This record gives sequence, structure tokens and C-alpha cells, in this order.
Amino acid sequence: MRIVVLAGSVAMLAACQQPAETPEQANARIASESAAAKTAIDSLNNQFAMNLSAGNADALMAAYTDNPVLMPPNGPAAKGRDAVKTTFTEVLFPLKPELKLTAEAVTANGDLAVERGIYTLTMTPPGAPAPVTETGKYLVHWHRVGGKWLIADDIWNSDQPAPGIPPRM
Amino acid sequence: MRIVVLAGSVAMLAACQQPAETPEQANARIASESAAAKTAIDSLNNQFAMNLSAGNADALMAAYTDNPVLMPPNGPAAKGRDAVKTTFTEVLFPLKPELKLTAEAVTANGDLAVERGIYTLTMTPPGAPAPVTETGKYLVHWHRVGGKWLIADDIWNSDQPAPGIPPRM
Repeated sequence: MRIVVLAGSVAMLAACQQPAETPEQANARIASESAAAKTAIDSLNNQFAMNLSAGNADALMAAYTDNPVLMPPNGPAAKGRDAVKTTFTEVLFPLKPELKLTAEAVTANGDLAVERGIYTLTMTPPGAPAPVTETGKYLVHWHRVGGKWLIADDIWNSDQPAPGIPPRM
Repeated sequence: MRIVVLAGSVAMLAACQQPAETPEQANARIASESAAAKTAIDSLNNQFAMNLSAGNADALMAAYTDNPVLMPPNGPAAKGRDAVKTTFTEVLFPLKPELKLTAEAVTANGDLAVERGIYTLTMTPPGAPAPVTETGKYLVHWHRVGGKWLIADDIWNSDQPAPGIPPRM
């Protein structure tokens, strides 16, 4: 009896001390978590585009972490919630942006996720004769806080050639 | 005796079935993993800059996953190893790039990491009278494979204003 008990206990201890998951289990878990994150992020992106068009800064800011970094092309990074909000209200809203985001790949592990996607952005700057549309790509670092995915870092750039020398890498 | 054995077994099972870590433990683990990833990535970034200056495409490609995406500003994304390599050999090497990468924040969870940083890039396009230096920011999605951090997605953009209307977001 004692031998049986001891063997059983050792087996259970061994099970506890093994890594939480095999590499195959980890891959399966990450695939599942990534798919779930993409579903959530697709929905959040649609809300984001609507809030951007509507010029709703408070609703947009609900998408961000406590310390987000927004990295627009051809300008400085906006670091922190105040700077991000100002970028929306002073730089972007006046351009009457209409944004479409398409996530191409989302990779999640626990509360960390990375989204790669493409965007179409139509802007009508004050005084411009007609709207201008550009396409580009983006990468977003998401952080899940209290079960909600929030944007920690957001960077994008245009597919369209820029005038000037040197050609921008 | 049986009761003691049963109680011990239940306690051990319960320990096994608890979540692997508390939120506090997860935060501590992620902070530790992120610090270790940053140390590795700082070193990889230095190697990357040296290989870029040297025009060593094979060494550069050793930094990438099997299916990387390189997203340069003002041009299309390069998807896959062949396209990334061609971007280096045909677009970047002729500009005699001198690159300095500075990681500002690395967040890692297991084999997934995100790096945010700033760069200084000096280029001398063929026929240009003098080198041109630009500064900008970047976001990289890293994936650890077989214990080695590899670049999965890489995007950057310039801080310098671009000529033309509309102002690029």
C-alpha cells in the first residue's frame, strides 16, 4: 500500500513539475488565442474607424492603454494619452478622415498581441479641391487589460511614393 | 491512512489544476522575459546594422523568420524571404545605408515579443552630392524559434515632414 501511494504521489508531482504545455500544445493554444484576438480586434477596428470619422476623441481614447504611443509617418511620435488625443483633435479630425482597417495577421500569446494589416484612408484637408485617398500598412501592439484589448503602440506608413530625394526606405 | 492519502492526492490535484500563475506572477515573469528579450534584441540590432552597412544579404536574412513581412514607407510591403532579400539587395544596399537602432521598449511573453524603437539612417543615393540622414521610429514583431529571436514583421517611418498635400498622417 505504501509503495502504491508513494508511486502515485511521485507521478502526480512529476506531472505538476512538467512544463505547463508541450511545444505542440503551445502552438495550438496560441493559434486559438490568436483567432479569438483577431475576432475581437476586427470589431474594435470597425469601432475605431467609426469613432475617427465621427471625430469622437473620447471614444477613440477608450481604445488605448494608459501609456500609448502613436507613430504617424513624417512627424514625431505622440507618447502618452494626452499627446495621442491632441494628434486626433488637432491633426487628424480637421482632415475629415475616413478609415478602413483590414487585419491581415494577428498573433496573440496571453495578454500580448501583434496585429499586421492594411488601411485605406481618405482625407479632405481644408481647402482641398477633392478628397485624397492613400493606402498603406500598419503594425499594432495590443495589450489585454481586464479582458479588453487595448492599443499600446500603433505605427503605419503609406504605400504611395513620396516626392523628393532620397527615396524613403 | 486512506483518508490521509486521499486528502494528499486531492491537494496535489488542486495544485495542478490551479492557473499556472497569478496576475502578479505573470507580470513579474513578463517583466523578466521582456528584459531578457531586450538584451538579446539589442545585440541582434547591432549585428543587423553592421550587416546592412556591409551589404551582407545572407547574414541579414538570418535575422528573419520563414515568412517575414518588411514594410518600408512609401512603397509596397515585401512579403516572404525572397521579397525581403530583394528589397535589401536592390533598394537599400545601393543607398549605402548606415543604420543605428535604439530599442525604447521591448515586451515579451513566451516566444512572442514586440519592440518599439527609434532609428537614425544615413543614406548616400547614387549621384547624391552628400549623405542624407533621417530619423524615425519603428515597431518590430519578434518570434523566438528554437531559442533564437527572429523578425516576423518590421515597419518604420520617418519623423521628417514629407512635401506634398495632404500632410501625411
